[in-house]
Amino acid sequence: MTRPSTRLDTARIRAAREVIDPVFLDTPLYRCEALEPDLGCTVSIKLETANPVRSFKARGTELVASQLAARGERAVVCASAGNLGQALGWSGRGRGLDVTVVASRFATAAKLDRIRALGAGLELVDGDHELARERAAAVARLDGIRLVEDSLDIETCEGAATIGLELVETLPSFDAVLIALGGGALATGVGHIVKSCAPGAEVICVQPQGAPAMTRSWHLGRVVTTGPTDTIADGVAGRRPIPVVLDDLLQVADDAVLVEEASIVTGMHMLLEHAGLVVEPSAALGIAALLEDRDRFAGRHVVTIVCGSNVDLDAYRSWLDAAPVHRS
Amino acid sequence: MTRPSTRLDTARIRAAREVIDPVFLDTPLYRCEALEPDLGCTVSIKLETANPVRSFKARGTELVASQLAARGERAVVCASAGNLGQALGWSGRGRGLDVTVVASRFATAAKLDRIRALGAGLELVDGDHELARERAAAVARLDGIRLVEDSLDIETCEGAATIGLELVETLPSFDAVLIALGGGALATGVGHIVKSCAPGAEVICVQPQGAPAMTRSWHLGRVVTTGPTDTIADGVAGRRPIPVVLDDLLQVADDAVLVEEASIVTGMHMLLEHAGLVVEPSAALGIAALLEDRDRFAGRHVVTIVCGSNVDLDAYRSWLDAAPVHRS
Repeated sequence: MTRPSTRLDTARIRAAREVIDPVFLDTPLYRCEALEPDLGCTVSIKLETANPVRSFKARGTELVASQLAARGERAVVCASAGNLGQALGWSGRGRGLDVTVVASRFATAAKLDRIRALGAGLELVDGDHELARERAAAVARLDGIRLVEDSLDIETCEGAATIGLELVETLPSFDAVLIALGGGALATGVGHIVKSCAPGAEVICVQPQGAPAMTRSWHLGRVVTTGPTDTIADGVAGRRPIPVVLDDLLQVADDAVLVEEASIVTGMHMLLEHAGLVVEPSAALGIAALLEDRDRFAGRHVVTIVCGSNVDLDAYRSWLDAAPVHRS
Repeated sequence: MTRPSTRLDTARIRAAREVIDPVFLDTPLYRCEALEPDLGCTVSIKLETANPVRSFKARGTELVASQLAARGERAVVCASAGNLGQALGWSGRGRGLDVTVVASRFATAAKLDRIRALGAGLELVDGDHELARERAAAVARLDGIRLVEDSLDIETCEGAATIGLELVETLPSFDAVLIALGGGALATGVGHIVKSCAPGAEVICVQPQGAPAMTRSWHLGRVVTTGPTDTIADGVAGRRPIPVVLDDLLQVADDAVLVEEASIVTGMHMLLEHAGLVVEPSAALGIAALLEDRDRFAGRHVVTIVCGSNVDLDAYRSWLDAAPVHRS
């Protein structure tokens, strides 16, 4: 295949590694054999949770915040389901920026608590993430400050893309990478690098059936919006795909699949039992996809990006307790 | 203070980094602010669980196995409470060595399962870890193969010491490092480097009250053995310290403290609640020490090495359920 012609730039992505705090880079990448008997394939984990914000999002916010600080800006605002807000809070605090995060009042409480703990201003809206996006845009206009739009802003995609560099530079080969699909920053970022540097590997995006907007859009080749989402995977629960992000995703994704909630829970369970990892639902989407299509992946080497671990433990326990324990 | 005169050699430790599989090196080191309000100090985590054997032990077994393979040896044996056996199983398998692990039949089942899954031969003895050590020595004599003795064999100490290099080379400064103390490989390894390269930082060893042999020996300056151990921290439950290891520990440790079982469980709870980490009891010893002596650490920057996550989940749940939930 030809090089993908996305908005992303591989040289800029390489340069981003020099800007991002090293605490977020060169994250663990290791084969987890204990998962393999149940899944029927070779599984490598790329772990994005062992850092100060427990998700990959700071790779992008480090780029945004360093640019704003270099320009002498003083404030920044974003809408967030929780992880972007924490990451921007962390990156902004270190550079003297006033950070405002707009979130749904239904967002995961642990995420909101951690945003506050980082000293960011938190504004809650009485609606879902799409309403938070609208409100954040209004705050930016009113205050004349930078709005960080996840997946639209190239820094969020190119920051996430540094994960892709670490994959292709560390693993001699792999057959597929499974990527949680929400707004698209992670998928277009990692996908751009994989298709540029390891084009033989499949780029497979995974979304919950209860939040299928971007996946449906990818299959139809045009933006499809949906009604309210219904999934525990709060980190990927968007309803309104961004057209230019879909254009990029069409360039780099080989497939986009939808998985059931029960598979997400089983995936979380397996990551706990066999890998000792507590993860948020979005981070189990890859395992869910393996569970739902064993034949497709049989005998292949698959990388799954464990993208976050910000979870309410009470909810986590209730999900796992409600599901049958998965034993091989 | 003067450079420590231990059996360990800093140049050899630096060279070890070239031999150890990179999947075990450059592990996450990050500040965990969510832990800090309850502990009253700055806490950085050095995370040794995100690798194929879920503990730091492979840093040492990589050295052993590579040396044996270079010499054309075909087999190796060790006694293990579980983590060394997994690590030697992993390192030996990759180099075509037949690995035998001798363990107590009371060892953590999850650890024994993972040793078997790696293809190692597992021999169980009807007694504790000290009996397993005796039996492993007998196997080595009978079969004429290399016995790997944890903490006695310099490779196990110098492998662990590479953690120390990563600490002193990554953190601009820290006030103390808290190290789980069992046989002493981790403590003498990390301690040697910290005292050589960052002598202003305190090296504090932590052991359970129910397995105090090495700590008592350190305080008395001579080997003290004890009766049966009584702790959930299976990874550090030795009764018979090795004299030359104690000699090294006397050179590099600033203190050795004992903690209660309840503090270990609270530490595990806090690492789950605030850091999203499932850890084995030995890995929570550092947090336990902080909990038991808040005044000592108030306002200081402390590093705790989270050294393993191989835990039976049923036991883990029962420990955490039995303890009062720790909330600030």
